Amino acid sequence: MAHASVDTDMTLEQMGIAAKSSAKVLRKLSTAEKNDALEKMAEALEAQQDFILNENMKDLMHSKEAEYPEAMVERLTLNQERIQGMANGLRQIAGLPDPTAVSKGEWVNGDGLRITRRSVPLGVIGIIYESRPNVTVDATALCLKAGNSVILRGGKEAINSNKALIQALKSGLEGSSVPADSIQLITDPSRELAAKFMKFNAGLDCLIPRGGGSLIQTVLDNATVPVIETGTGNCHLYIHEQADLAMAKSILINGKTQRPSVCNALETLLIDESIADTALPILSEALAEKGVLIHGDETVCARLKDAVPATEADYHAEYLANEIAVKIVADYETAVSHIEKYSSGHSDAIVTTSYTHAQDFLDDIDSAAVYVNASTRFTDGEMFGFGGEIGISTQKLHARGPMGLEALTSYKYVILGSGQIKA
Amino acid sequence: MAHASVDTDMTLEQMGIAAKSSAKVLRKLSTAEKNDALEKMAEALEAQQDFILNENMKDLMHSKEAEYPEAMVERLTLNQERIQGMANGLRQIAGLPDPTAVSKGEWVNGDGLRITRRSVPLGVIGIIYESRPNVTVDATALCLKAGNSVILRGGKEAINSNKALIQALKSGLEGSSVPADSIQLITDPSRELAAKFMKFNAGLDCLIPRGGGSLIQTVLDNATVPVIETGTGNCHLYIHEQADLAMAKSILINGKTQRPSVCNALETLLIDESIADTALPILSEALAEKGVLIHGDETVCARLKDAVPATEADYHAEYLANEIAVKIVADYETAVSHIEKYSSGHSDAIVTTSYTHAQDFLDDIDSAAVYVNASTRFTDGEMFGFGGEIGISTQKLHARGPMGLEALTSYKYVILGSGQIKA
Repeated sequence: MAHASVDTDMTLEQMGIAAKSSAKVLRKLSTAEKNDALEKMAEALEAQQDFILNENMKDLMHSKEAEYPEAMVERLTLNQERIQGMANGLRQIAGLPDPTAVSKGEWVNGDGLRITRRSVPLGVIGIIYESRPNVTVDATALCLKAGNSVILRGGKEAINSNKALIQALKSGLEGSSVPADSIQLITDPSRELAAKFMKFNAGLDCLIPRGGGSLIQTVLDNATVPVIETGTGNCHLYIHEQADLAMAKSILINGKTQRPSVCNALETLLIDESIADTALPILSEALAEKGVLIHGDETVCARLKDAVPATEADYHAEYLANEIAVKIVADYETAVSHIEKYSSGHSDAIVTTSYTHAQDFLDDIDSAAVYVNASTRFTDGEMFGFGGEIGISTQKLHARGPMGLEALTSYKYVILGSGQIKA
Repeated sequence: MAHASVDTDMTLEQMGIAAKSSAKVLRKLSTAEKNDALEKMAEALEAQQDFILNENMKDLMHSKEAEYPEAMVERLTLNQERIQGMANGLRQIAGLPDPTAVSKGEWVNGDGLRITRRSVPLGVIGIIYESRPNVTVDATALCLKAGNSVILRGGKEAINSNKALIQALKSGLEGSSVPADSIQLITDPSRELAAKFMKFNAGLDCLIPRGGGSLIQTVLDNATVPVIETGTGNCHLYIHEQADLAMAKSILINGKTQRPSVCNALETLLIDESIADTALPILSEALAEKGVLIHGDETVCARLKDAVPATEADYHAEYLANEIAVKIVADYETAVSHIEKYSSGHSDAIVTTSYTHAQDFLDDIDSAAVYVNASTRFTDGEMFGFGGEIGISTQKLHARGPMGLEALTSYKYVILGSGQIKA
């Protein structure tokens, strides 16, 4: 089988030029042409499955030799089902509405100029990520669907897998209208090149880091390219004094234990003092049944023999594991102050039957997603109905919360005149 | 007369805490309460005019001692008319729609969750600018109207004027619902504090530089706070082979000479070769009449005795003066390539009677504002109908082109449930 090859000799500047020149072609393609390319990419992944799995095996062998943590090896592992999942993901993205085919407004100004705010692709998007090969396919598909070229810089642990995946995707593009140069993969694993990538303003319109807290912090500290910060999630659940405790228990257990390793999982439980006598036993027992370790404040530790004392660090912690901080709060205001102080601005929830406190909570909590009587686990592009997600933004510029295709677009003003000059 | 004083002893951290705590109050105020504060601020400017002019005189005396350029002294100068202009500007902003009182969408997802994308203020906005005291008032008013606190860092040349203006504005707030701490002025003129300000992620939700190219570059190079890049304008006018030359002349002269010192003024004229024999004499004569120096390519210099040869630097130049680069281009594609290479992505225009070339130009030129048959001088929040403008963005994230009040807002997702958990 012939494969489009990944050119490992290209400099970053050359990649930038190739990506930018492809972006000019891409932004003029029809929705049908982009969708056709996504379908062909899906077929290529399916057809080249054996090749991809062979290359993935090389990464897995290296990772075992290097004694990487089991969780990392698990994330790195591809199999037939996961590759099929990637292909299905491509077809799902093909089925989504084209975000550049949407009106953002048109009006005629006082001088008779017809002004349109036209939705356009961002241009060239940089993605910097860790060892999940599925990001390689997902991010590429979302960028292309929105009419953008993409330059990918994945973790060195996944380099063979990523090269194989990109080779397959590029071979799929060969029969399509999307230029193969729309996709660029950085194969040089050095930190020097990563640092250069973060300052590659000449070649990138924006940079999106996807991964853990330290990757994101490094990008924030070093990038000069405009960055969309994606999410660390220190998420809170506050059980108000007027609350349905069965609902509280169900939302707590779902938020903490359904998938503890993700950013929208709960990390801290706040219980109103006035209902602590009733609520704490019910909630702590449910947590214990699921094997969740409780880091409690003084009151909690006095009442629960299995709880360990919570330190300041626990309230800041994103455990991403079967652990939770539990604190008894004096009242609504104390709960809000705690969340204000410690929340990462991702997702926070209240359980209450009080109309006033529900409305106040929605106003008072300055996070990307604020919930009344529902699990924080819903903060997700797919759950929100966006069909896909490039990440969850915890910053306030450009995009906030789950970012779908729209977050990968910008706009420009198109002004139609008949000779108007400024008076 | 009693004046609210500007506390010059506050540290940046203290200002951040005060601004953030005011932002919590601000974001819950009604439109009427914010408008009332703007009106009271306008009245305070009028009432304290003599005090402001006295303080401005100190800056003017320093600037004359320091032999600052005349243009800078001119920008720094306040008089009765200018202060009245500022007060009128405040009232105009009070009259604009509240950008946080706008729906950004609401839907019910598959799980029955009601999801609202609620428009909210950004929070605390940093503004870093040069010596125009009017920015102090404009920027503050726009930030407050959108529900944000503001931390200002103006040029040291204007420090006495800025202190007086902020003192007046704060005294106006005293009788209003807007906390006086919503406005913070950095009075320490050191570069060290400016550098700290650019990295003040704990206190700022975004940073907007307003001023010349070197200020903006310094901010881009050093800031870790999310920045909205505002505009250097290397704007182009292309006279297509099918063009109404009378219209071309009028748009050229308006774009270049109506106000050469601003970012939406023209800097380069491209003339299609096929009409150069007719067009060049007409256009160059009109430029000469207005005293504009032509930096021409070889052909232009061969034909015009007063033209000086254009170098590569001229095509990159933002003259902001009575000078223009003029180049004869072989065809439409060459014109587009030139603009792609040299444009700062601000505003570019074509004059043409060809439907096809007009549409192609709108697609091909990747700038914030793309014009057919109109002057680039219209790229302006007021001209676009936004009522005011915090700057003109030449980046693609968050906001592009003239930024009105909407650019000073973000959104959050508000999710109303009835006990939903993720399956």
